[in-house]
Amino acid sequence: MGKFADRYFGVNPWLITEKGFDPAYGMVAESVFSLVNGHMGLRGYFDEGYSGERLQGSYVNGVYERREAAHQHYCGVPDTVEFMVNAVDWLRTSITCGGERLDLYTSDISDFTRTLDMRTGELTRAFVWHVNDETDIKLTFERVLSMEYPELGASRISWEVLRGVEAPDVSPEIEFSDYWDVEKTAAAPDFRALTGTTRHTKQTLYASVSYRRSESALTRIAHISRVSPADRGALIRHTYNGLRSGSAAWWRSQWAQSDVEIDGPDDDRQGIRYCVFQMHQTNSGRGRVVVGAKGLTGEAYNGNTFWDTEIYCLPFYLFTNPKAAKSILRFRRETLNEAMERARELNLNGAFYPIATISGRECCTLWQHANTQLQASTAVAYAIWHYTMITGDDGFLRGPGLEMLTEICRMLAARGAYDPITGEYGYYGVMGPDEFQLMVNHNRYTNYMAKKTLLFTLETLRSVGAEETEEHRDWRQKAEAMRAGYDAQTLLYEQHDGFFRLPHVDVASIPAEEFPLYNHWSYDRIFRNDIIKQPDVLMFMFLYSSEFSLEQLAANFDYYEPRCIHESSLSPSVHSILACRLGRVEQAYELFRFASRLDLDNYNRNTSEGLHTTSLAGGWMNIIYGFAGLGSGGGQLSLNPALPDCWRRLSFPLKYRGRLLRVEITHEGTDVRLESGPPISIKLRGEDYSVPAAGE
Amino acid sequence: MGKFADRYFGVNPWLITEKGFDPAYGMVAESVFSLVNGHMGLRGYFDEGYSGERLQGSYVNGVYERREAAHQHYCGVPDTVEFMVNAVDWLRTSITCGGERLDLYTSDISDFTRTLDMRTGELTRAFVWHVNDETDIKLTFERVLSMEYPELGASRISWEVLRGVEAPDVSPEIEFSDYWDVEKTAAAPDFRALTGTTRHTKQTLYASVSYRRSESALTRIAHISRVSPADRGALIRHTYNGLRSGSAAWWRSQWAQSDVEIDGPDDDRQGIRYCVFQMHQTNSGRGRVVVGAKGLTGEAYNGNTFWDTEIYCLPFYLFTNPKAAKSILRFRRETLNEAMERARELNLNGAFYPIATISGRECCTLWQHANTQLQASTAVAYAIWHYTMITGDDGFLRGPGLEMLTEICRMLAARGAYDPITGEYGYYGVMGPDEFQLMVNHNRYTNYMAKKTLLFTLETLRSVGAEETEEHRDWRQKAEAMRAGYDAQTLLYEQHDGFFRLPHVDVASIPAEEFPLYNHWSYDRIFRNDIIKQPDVLMFMFLYSSEFSLEQLAANFDYYEPRCIHESSLSPSVHSILACRLGRVEQAYELFRFASRLDLDNYNRNTSEGLHTTSLAGGWMNIIYGFAGLGSGGGQLSLNPALPDCWRRLSFPLKYRGRLLRVEITHEGTDVRLESGPPISIKLRGEDYSVPAAGE
Repeated sequence: MGKFADRYFGVNPWLITEKGFDPAYGMVAESVFSLVNGHMGLRGYFDEGYSGERLQGSYVNGVYERREAAHQHYCGVPDTVEFMVNAVDWLRTSITCGGERLDLYTSDISDFTRTLDMRTGELTRAFVWHVNDETDIKLTFERVLSMEYPELGASRISWEVLRGVEAPDVSPEIEFSDYWDVEKTAAAPDFRALTGTTRHTKQTLYASVSYRRSESALTRIAHISRVSPADRGALIRHTYNGLRSGSAAWWRSQWAQSDVEIDGPDDDRQGIRYCVFQMHQTNSGRGRVVVGAKGLTGEAYNGNTFWDTEIYCLPFYLFTNPKAAKSILRFRRETLNEAMERARELNLNGAFYPIATISGRECCTLWQHANTQLQASTAVAYAIWHYTMITGDDGFLRGPGLEMLTEICRMLAARGAYDPITGEYGYYGVMGPDEFQLMVNHNRYTNYMAKKTLLFTLETLRSVGAEETEEHRDWRQKAEAMRAGYDAQTLLYEQHDGFFRLPHVDVASIPAEEFPLYNHWSYDRIFRNDIIKQPDVLMFMFLYSSEFSLEQLAANFDYYEPRCIHESSLSPSVHSILACRLGRVEQAYELFRFASRLDLDNYNRNTSEGLHTTSLAGGWMNIIYGFAGLGSGGGQLSLNPALPDCWRRLSFPLKYRGRLLRVEITHEGTDVRLESGPPISIKLRGEDYSVPAAGE
Repeated sequence: MGKFADRYFGVNPWLITEKGFDPAYGMVAESVFSLVNGHMGLRGYFDEGYSGERLQGSYVNGVYERREAAHQHYCGVPDTVEFMVNAVDWLRTSITCGGERLDLYTSDISDFTRTLDMRTGELTRAFVWHVNDETDIKLTFERVLSMEYPELGASRISWEVLRGVEAPDVSPEIEFSDYWDVEKTAAAPDFRALTGTTRHTKQTLYASVSYRRSESALTRIAHISRVSPADRGALIRHTYNGLRSGSAAWWRSQWAQSDVEIDGPDDDRQGIRYCVFQMHQTNSGRGRVVVGAKGLTGEAYNGNTFWDTEIYCLPFYLFTNPKAAKSILRFRRETLNEAMERARELNLNGAFYPIATISGRECCTLWQHANTQLQASTAVAYAIWHYTMITGDDGFLRGPGLEMLTEICRMLAARGAYDPITGEYGYYGVMGPDEFQLMVNHNRYTNYMAKKTLLFTLETLRSVGAEETEEHRDWRQKAEAMRAGYDAQTLLYEQHDGFFRLPHVDVASIPAEEFPLYNHWSYDRIFRNDIIKQPDVLMFMFLYSSEFSLEQLAANFDYYEPRCIHESSLSPSVHSILACRLGRVEQAYELFRFASRLDLDNYNRNTSEGLHTTSLAGGWMNIIYGFAGLGSGGGQLSLNPALPDCWRRLSFPLKYRGRLLRVEITHEGTDVRLESGPPISIKLRGEDYSVPAAGE
């Protein structure tokens, strides 16, 4: 896979640390030190400004602008794009002393440290500013976003004159980005309020900040709201320390319910905690949440959400914070109308969920993806099934869930066709998860997921006592006729009709400098051989792993894995999990190697653009589904642990249908306990196992 | 096919006439009244300006500008586009009288007539201008582009005061379009000279005009050159009448060698003559010629040339003006380096000819066309073969022809692959002529044309005594292993692997208002069923028709014709020709119906953008290959005439290997005579026939 660590940050089980500032890592550090509380996000940018390369990003969940797409018009391809918009910089501070303005790109500083404490969610930065021959000043910057009150954030800048007599002048400012029309509604020495409105989407944001100054410190409490402004009185009730304590308490509770403890190398310990920390930051379960490809930590992919959210991120939330899981589904329910409108644009019935979206409308302007990938729609259906199975929340399924499922099935029944020779049903002109195979017929993933969606919907309809209609019979007929493309002799699924007859390219023979292929191979060349970008057949074998035997898995793994170049950050995790299942633990650990540290060690060299949110989730899945061998098929939890040699112990909690379970795995054995909730029986290494209640 | 005539111009065997001016047809008339002499082209715009809708186009062959493409970057897809640039308006004239400026959009006029005389190439316009209650002026505008001296054009404006005393003020002007940096190099009352340079491509154009005035007329002689300026002395030697006479003589000679006379409905007679007239205008055989999709009559398709030029236009020139045919091949030879550069961009060897070009560089920015269509390259090879066969010019083949063929074969040997199961060779991820089937494997047209190209090149190499190399053996092996996809049972060629298993759509069931499909169907939907846009299997069966039996043709025609929606103006001609071959003359005439009058009757409602140059060629092919049943396979000319009922006689000359033949067809029989050149034997209705020499 040819990926190598670029280690810059200190390794510590609970802290991310930076000692000494290297401008070359400026934007990587901005991403890594992002603070997010579900509602808003701040990259780790410098309050005082910075004349070097930076992305001074401050974002609010669900706030976006719109622009025209730059391409020739095609029917069914969107002409406009919506993107997460940089909002308001309320940390901005002018710091001057001796006629110089502080700027870490040009100022003379020493003893720089920056620390993100994952136990409290606080980011701290300190350094000594050598203003001139007579003056040295120590500056400390602290910031926190409240996990209790998501519309609140706080910052404290304090200073100490170490040498000389001149104190710095520290002046707070506040500014919206250029995308906004801004109105100042209040301005006093200790209070500022602004109202910003996006020019095209006309979304409003109310920003209010109160300031408290002393001789050696400036504290701010900011209120950033989509609903209403805050007055000074509402803000001065809060203190920096108070908000920090509240957040620390929230984090204590979260860690108790989701910490993944590894007794092994510190970089693995830090890596998985960073994944868990950022996943909670991205979505704490309040309100409707758009989980963008970069969360609220950068602008790449326009802040849009993809099907990866339902497939890779949802499991983390299902087992650690079901409310957060539900907020993801709620976004899809609230944008069902847009998905139905999208189906009309594609000359279909029902609902076609967008490949990339922030508002519910399709924002992918590449027809070869936007019009041919059905996996956003089948992922929503899968997520409803998965959510129901893990949380037991039948109410959601029978209400909003069934509404979505019904419209997705209508689309699936409209988009497919019967093979004129065999009479089998399936999808023509599609692109499956493997984006290296374009406009193919009967992609197995698409067919398989569609069949599962149709059958689950029919089963749900029956369970709520719905009468079987002509339409339902049509769905059943199509599900039953769905082309499987399975060869009982070889146990192989052919990725699509004709895949086995594509010219073979030996992936190992491709020179390292030709990766990533998108940058070095003519676009069409990528699509005309048997190289695959990421799991496709192996993907549905992972999602429904209880339905396939180890022999079937082994046959397909051995066929597809060598053809996969993992040109997606999500690909190795799935392969690693399947390798665990096949008992190939060392290959699994090799594939896992960077899954949990993709951003901390900047493996893909693009962490500067923002964190790989879904890969962070993949790191968690890799451990829990892979090394712990979690399974949930057939309505029962199962564990098949297989630790790498260098881990002595793996311990984590799991929420499951109103219970909190604790799993402890060593090379000697596995211990599962109930911390709360009613008794339960699980499968442990294939054997029934009654989990003892807490204290038993 | 749902196409209907929108008849506006008068029907006359030799004239295109307009009586009374309707602004709604202003731009259609501009296109239809275009004058071109191979080197330069003028739309039929009004000298005096016009404030209504217009495209005041004046173009010079091979002159283009460059702009950035508006799309996401993909490897192997061009980032810049080159387009034919509007050049210099030397007809511009300010005509004022009684304080009013003449403008046919606002002025009060009557007795408007406009006439294009196809016997002389002269365009004449006349009307009476009712300036005010006291003044009526008759104005006559004449223009001609010299066919003798391609850099010269001439215009004459004359006036007669019918009522009143005030004569008009007629002032000549000259102006380059906005794309040019312009320098005035001479300005006198009777002479103007400008030098224009395009901003990005830095092409230079020298424009000089001399003026001659009398009390009732203004005459101009314009010299538009890419090589050097003309001084006044060089221009005043010419007169309007002299240039017109020279052109008329040229046309007399051309008509003698290429007129297609139909004894039948006047609209058919006028239609085919308009085709022949415009084809000669587009390319008279001087210098390197880029035959753009709209010739020099409009800016749609950026003035780019496509593979249609080699396949549809070349035959007309081969049989009427071999020098013009050679100029098309010369353009491809002179841009061989660009085609080799293009192959590099696509990670290939050899030469990959661009899908759309004006400079030799690829200007199509749609990867799904630019990177996957091999037919420009195979069309160049076919054109070399065709040119050699019809003209007998072996020298071209052995020199420049073989250089091109060799590089095309290198590309063909690099782009294809062997089927891992059957060992057959062919092309993966391609789009054949039928643009409704995208990213397919083993498109039959592509495979077939590649095989023919490889074998013809090997045969040519052998004929020049070249030693067989390893590379040549590789070509032979690939040609011999080329997958044919032919079923001896049904006699059908499958258009590509899997075509027969695509869902069927009954073309007749598509509502008329859904055409053209590109404007009404979601882009992806077009590609996932068995609808085809234009002939693909039928195309190679047409190009190599002597290699297929009538039974094979009938089987494939009956299968593919009902699936074809003819969403290309070139499609019906080929189907009509094949229907003739199958003896289905009335179906053929139905398909022919608008082939020769596509622009005169504005069937596609977009003649305003420029003439459909390749369709004009298709009109000629339809008659000569179809109703006259011309064939040239196997090294011998053949005729299988089958006239429609409403034609009593069809007569036309043909140039063939240094001869001029005359063909006369009636329902009673066919007469072929030699007008010049050595004796020859042809096949007439399948029988050997020795053509009697002239006068015998």
